[in-house]
Amino acid sequence: MPGRPRPGEFELIRELFAPLAADEPGALGLLDDAALIAPRPGFELVTAIDTIVEGVHFLPADPPFDVARKLMRVNLSDLAAMGARPRAYLLGLVVPDALDFDWLRDFARGLASDQVRFGMTLAGGDTTATTGPPCLSLTAIGEVEPGRALLRSNAAPGEHIYVSGAIGDAALGLRVLRGEDTGLPEDACEAAAVRYRLPEPRLSLGMAVPASAAVDVSDGLVADLGHICVASGLGARIEAARVPLSGPARAALELGTVGIADVLTGGDDYELVFTAPADRGNAVREAAARVRVPVTRIGAMTEGEGVSVVDEAGAAMEIGRAGYAHF
Amino acid sequence: MPGRPRPGEFELIRELFAPLAADEPGALGLLDDAALIAPRPGFELVTAIDTIVEGVHFLPADPPFDVARKLMRVNLSDLAAMGARPRAYLLGLVVPDALDFDWLRDFARGLASDQVRFGMTLAGGDTTATTGPPCLSLTAIGEVEPGRALLRSNAAPGEHIYVSGAIGDAALGLRVLRGEDTGLPEDACEAAAVRYRLPEPRLSLGMAVPASAAVDVSDGLVADLGHICVASGLGARIEAARVPLSGPARAALELGTVGIADVLTGGDDYELVFTAPADRGNAVREAAARVRVPVTRIGAMTEGEGVSVVDEAGAAMEIGRAGYAHF
Repeated sequence: MPGRPRPGEFELIRELFAPLAADEPGALGLLDDAALIAPRPGFELVTAIDTIVEGVHFLPADPPFDVARKLMRVNLSDLAAMGARPRAYLLGLVVPDALDFDWLRDFARGLASDQVRFGMTLAGGDTTATTGPPCLSLTAIGEVEPGRALLRSNAAPGEHIYVSGAIGDAALGLRVLRGEDTGLPEDACEAAAVRYRLPEPRLSLGMAVPASAAVDVSDGLVADLGHICVASGLGARIEAARVPLSGPARAALELGTVGIADVLTGGDDYELVFTAPADRGNAVREAAARVRVPVTRIGAMTEGEGVSVVDEAGAAMEIGRAGYAHF
Repeated sequence: MPGRPRPGEFELIRELFAPLAADEPGALGLLDDAALIAPRPGFELVTAIDTIVEGVHFLPADPPFDVARKLMRVNLSDLAAMGARPRAYLLGLVVPDALDFDWLRDFARGLASDQVRFGMTLAGGDTTATTGPPCLSLTAIGEVEPGRALLRSNAAPGEHIYVSGAIGDAALGLRVLRGEDTGLPEDACEAAAVRYRLPEPRLSLGMAVPASAAVDVSDGLVADLGHICVASGLGARIEAARVPLSGPARAALELGTVGIADVLTGGDDYELVFTAPADRGNAVREAAARVRVPVTRIGAMTEGEGVSVVDEAGAAMEIGRAGYAHF
């Protein structure tokens, strides 16, 4: 059954998107082609842009409500990795004429749900047509106190490396969604798939933790920690056995349907990996406890370059590909 | 002859895009997934996003150098209409795997050329793959003093309406590029096509002119002035004979290959339409002269709603479609 035909751009904006901008005076009711954003006094703005493409980052059959939330959350995860508080966002929607109104309405509902949850409002955007698959881009705008941003270049030798939550579900979830056999019971498969589809940005942790450098796990733990290494001109050494694994990932490892290298290089968990001076361990744990996010120390920054992964005996392990490339 | 194969995302960023971000400390060398932007003290930020899609806004054979400049300029035109000074931009590149390195290199060169010209730097971005046509999006960030932005909602009844430069070339240029006969000599066709391909954002005028409300002509003069009417809750009355027409547009009108309605509703001229109180006429003309941009008074804001176009006798003219919709 075909949905309601799509109205024109201005009607779409008025009906679906202007309500999302009602609480942000700088959005100007979406009546201008630009938005005004003044950071609160004493703050600077953090901006991050991410685009998701149908067939690459989501599937045509995915519920638009969840597609919207994934789009928002991958960007919020970038703000989390900077230690920023979300403030506003801009949307760039490039969609084929055939996309019907119901899809866009449910997409807007997904945005509405998550913007309340994460405390941000729509501030502006652009809608255009394409002959190709939908490309949905979001520019997230957050605020951070000057000097407080958790830059990738801020790590120092000897700093401890931590990871939030648990690693492995998203890579497993992708396998499930691709129809590959993980050997796991159905509920574990479903949980992993949900986590792949809908990441949980670690915003409260990013804002609270006294970290030096941080990155979110989107390309894979090893690859993303590698970004901190490159930006800081350092190396990193992590102990595989310390890396906190999700229940399904542990079970799949025991079954042998995935290897530890798959888990350490699988992307899209959107946990935070961060570094902090060794003498700040208590402060890190206290901050994490305050925001109720588990954190685990997995290694330390070193002189040199690259990420080395060692086993419990301290021997270097061979980790194959460096991470998942979306490009 | 196939071009150089495209390197991976990180190499692309390092080779083509990091040099464009060298002068913006907040770009963090493009090593983070987010950028830091602090407005100068006493300013707020203006953001605008626009996406252009191959086959919709540009053609596969268009030179990538010009595609980049068009992408930047349509966004800068939005900043101009707010009276903002350009500061930085974010890029969202969604390109098929088949797009070769040479295309991207020339695209980056176009950005490099225009960012120097317009005084902005790359601050961040995202690159991803698509199975469809290239979608190129740019978020422009500018600065404006609080209260100085030329909001569409700021117009008042009785204010005079002005337009910068001359109208008509872009609509004519689009006809030329579509292979339609305009009856004009080749050099006039070429000039119109260039203007369609490469708009000239009226930044200096937007910053200098003591206007109340402004909009850039992207959907067509009548449609864009209509946006001011809607946002301000007013009507507008313009005299067709006062609208400044480009030389080619005048010639095509005389030949009868285009009608006045085509000119008044054709998009993409990227001139500014703005309103100012009647007693500010001298100040408007002085500011325009200072930045060397011609401006012409074409009518006045009224009570009521909608844009009416009148002929020299004051009789209402029938203007067909309300503007060109890119969506």
